[in-house]
Amino acid sequence: MKIPLTELRVKVLKTFTDKGFSEHDANRIADVLLWADMCGTTTMGVVKLIGIEPIQNEKADAQIKVVRDTKLSQLIDSDHAPAPLACQLATDVVIQKAKDHGIGIVGVNNYWCSSAALGYYVDRIAHEDFIGISLSRGGGAMVPFGSADRLFGTNPIAFAFPTNDEPIIFDIATSITTLSGLTLAKNRGQKLPEGFAIDKDGNPTTDPAEALDGAMFPFDHGHKGSGLGLVAEIMAGPLVDSAYCDFQNQKDYGQLFIAIDPELLVDTATFKEQCSDMVRIMKNARKQKGVDEIRLPGERARAAYTQAEASGEVDVEETVLRELGYIS
Amino acid sequence: MKIPLTELRVKVLKTFTDKGFSEHDANRIADVLLWADMCGTTTMGVVKLIGIEPIQNEKADAQIKVVRDTKLSQLIDSDHAPAPLACQLATDVVIQKAKDHGIGIVGVNNYWCSSAALGYYVDRIAHEDFIGISLSRGGGAMVPFGSADRLFGTNPIAFAFPTNDEPIIFDIATSITTLSGLTLAKNRGQKLPEGFAIDKDGNPTTDPAEALDGAMFPFDHGHKGSGLGLVAEIMAGPLVDSAYCDFQNQKDYGQLFIAIDPELLVDTATFKEQCSDMVRIMKNARKQKGVDEIRLPGERARAAYTQAEASGEVDVEETVLRELGYIS
Repeated sequence: MKIPLTELRVKVLKTFTDKGFSEHDANRIADVLLWADMCGTTTMGVVKLIGIEPIQNEKADAQIKVVRDTKLSQLIDSDHAPAPLACQLATDVVIQKAKDHGIGIVGVNNYWCSSAALGYYVDRIAHEDFIGISLSRGGGAMVPFGSADRLFGTNPIAFAFPTNDEPIIFDIATSITTLSGLTLAKNRGQKLPEGFAIDKDGNPTTDPAEALDGAMFPFDHGHKGSGLGLVAEIMAGPLVDSAYCDFQNQKDYGQLFIAIDPELLVDTATFKEQCSDMVRIMKNARKQKGVDEIRLPGERARAAYTQAEASGEVDVEETVLRELGYIS
Repeated sequence: MKIPLTELRVKVLKTFTDKGFSEHDANRIADVLLWADMCGTTTMGVVKLIGIEPIQNEKADAQIKVVRDTKLSQLIDSDHAPAPLACQLATDVVIQKAKDHGIGIVGVNNYWCSSAALGYYVDRIAHEDFIGISLSRGGGAMVPFGSADRLFGTNPIAFAFPTNDEPIIFDIATSITTLSGLTLAKNRGQKLPEGFAIDKDGNPTTDPAEALDGAMFPFDHGHKGSGLGLVAEIMAGPLVDSAYCDFQNQKDYGQLFIAIDPELLVDTATFKEQCSDMVRIMKNARKQKGVDEIRLPGERARAAYTQAEASGEVDVEETVLRELGYIS
C-alpha cells in the first residue's frame, strides 16, 4: 500500500529513537531503509524491521571501533550497532580513502543484522565518481553446490559504476531469493517455486517456513552461483575478521566495501561517458522475442525511486506496516 | 589423448618461435597454455592456438607500452602482443604494486586474442599471499538479458584466495560456455544443448556453427549472469581504455588485474588458516542426495594438474593436436 515518505520516515525514526538511538543515527539508518523501499525492493526496506533479525534490536549505544587503519584500508568493529549505521560509516571512510589515495577498502564486522540494501552504499560511492563494490556474508541460509548444510548466507554482491546520468547499480543476492523474501512469502501464505529450497533434513520443500529452517540454493542452482557465494563468504568473512560457514562459528555478519577511482587507469570523464554510451547501446539493441524492453541492472529500481521521489509516496507491503504498528 | 608435457611444450615453443617470438616470450606463453591443459580445461589450453583467434598470429615484435602508471596502478598497451604475454607482464606488475603498497590494479588493452586461462594469473597472485581478481572482456559472443545482439564477450571473472595449501581458484565464463567450447563442439560434430544459444537472427539454435555466428546466453539464462557479464564488460572495457559492446567498436579485448594484501585488514596467516578451514568445512558438509563428493571451485582442475605433473603427461583433444600438426 502507498504511504507518504515523510510519514514513513517519522515512523521509522520513532522505531529507533524509542530504542534509545539518537535522531542522527536513526536518520542515517532510515536513509538506507527508505532508499530500498523507494527502489521497490520489497525484501530490503522496512521489512528489515520485522522477521528474525529486526535491525532496531541491535545496540543503540554501540562503541564502534577502528581495529586497523592504513592509508588504503580500515577494519571497523561495529560492537553490535545496527549494520546500516556501521555501513554508512564504512562508506564515508572508503570514499575518503579513495579520494586521498585512489582506492579504499574497508571491512565491517561484529554485527548481527542485515545491512539492508548493498545497492545503497555502492550508489553513494558511485555518486563520488568512484567504482563501488560491496560484498556481504551472513548467517547460514544457502547451501554451497552439492552440500545439504547451509554454510553460506544469502551473500549479496553489488557493483556501481558512475555514468553521466545516474550510476549503473548491480546488486544481487547469490542465493535464489533473500531471507526477507522467505519471510514475506510465509507472511503472505505463499508457496515457493519448486527447486528454490530444501528443509533442514535436505529434502526439497516449497514451504517458506521449512526453507527458513533449511536452506536456499544459489541463484543459478549451480557451481557458478555457489562460487560467487563463496567469494562473498571469504571477502566479507575471514578478510574482515568476521565469521564463516555458519554452524561452526556463528560470530557475526561481515561486509566489505571497495572504492576505486577510475582515474588510476583512465580519464574519469571518458569512463563515465563510455558507461553512459554502453547504457544507450544496450537499451537500443535488438530484443529477444517476447521482450518488451531491455532493462539494465538497477533500472527498474531507479525508475521506482524516481517515481516515489516525485509522488512523495512509497509502496510498502501492508502486512509489514501492520506488523510494525505503522498502520492499524 | 595423452601427450608428454615436455613434448607438448617443445611443440608449443616451436609454434611461437616459428612466428618470430623469442624463446623467453614463447616460454611465458606456453606456461599459461600448458597450465590450462594440465588443469583439464579443454577449452582454455592449446585449443587457443586454433579457431578464430589463434594466439600465435599476434605480433611477435609488439612494443608493449606503459600508458599510465601510479603507485597503485598501471595501464598497459599491448600493441597486439599475444594476450598471455601481456597478461604475464601485468601479473608481474600487479604483484609488485601489492607488495609495495598493499593493493595493485593493472589494466591491459590493445590485443586481439584470448588471454587463455584467467585462473592462471590469479593463481600466481594468490601464491604471493594476495587475493587475486581478474576480469576480461572480448568480442561479441553473449547477449545481455533480453537482447538479441551479442554485445558482451564470454567475459570471464576469476578470484583466487591463498590458503595454507593450494589457493582456492574460482574462474568462470559469465556465458553458458566459451568460444573454444563452441569451436570444439563444431569440430566434434556435436550439437549444443537446448537453450544455450541463438543464431545471428536471434532464433534458438543447437548448431555450434550458428552459435558462433550468433550468440550464447549468460550462464544462468538470467539477469544476474548478464549483470556479471556487464561488470566485466565495464571493468575490462572502459576502465582499461578497451572496447565495449562489440559491434559499435571492435577495437580490442581488455583485461583487469587486482591484487589485494589481506594484511590491509587482518593478519594474513589467520586469513589463510581460516580459508583452509572453510575448505575443510565445505568438504565435510552433509551432501545433497545423489552427490558423491562436494567439490570446491578449482578443485577438479587442481587434481588434474597434480596428476599431470606427477605423470608427466597431459590429456589434449586429438582433433586439436591434429589441427596444430602436433600429431600426424
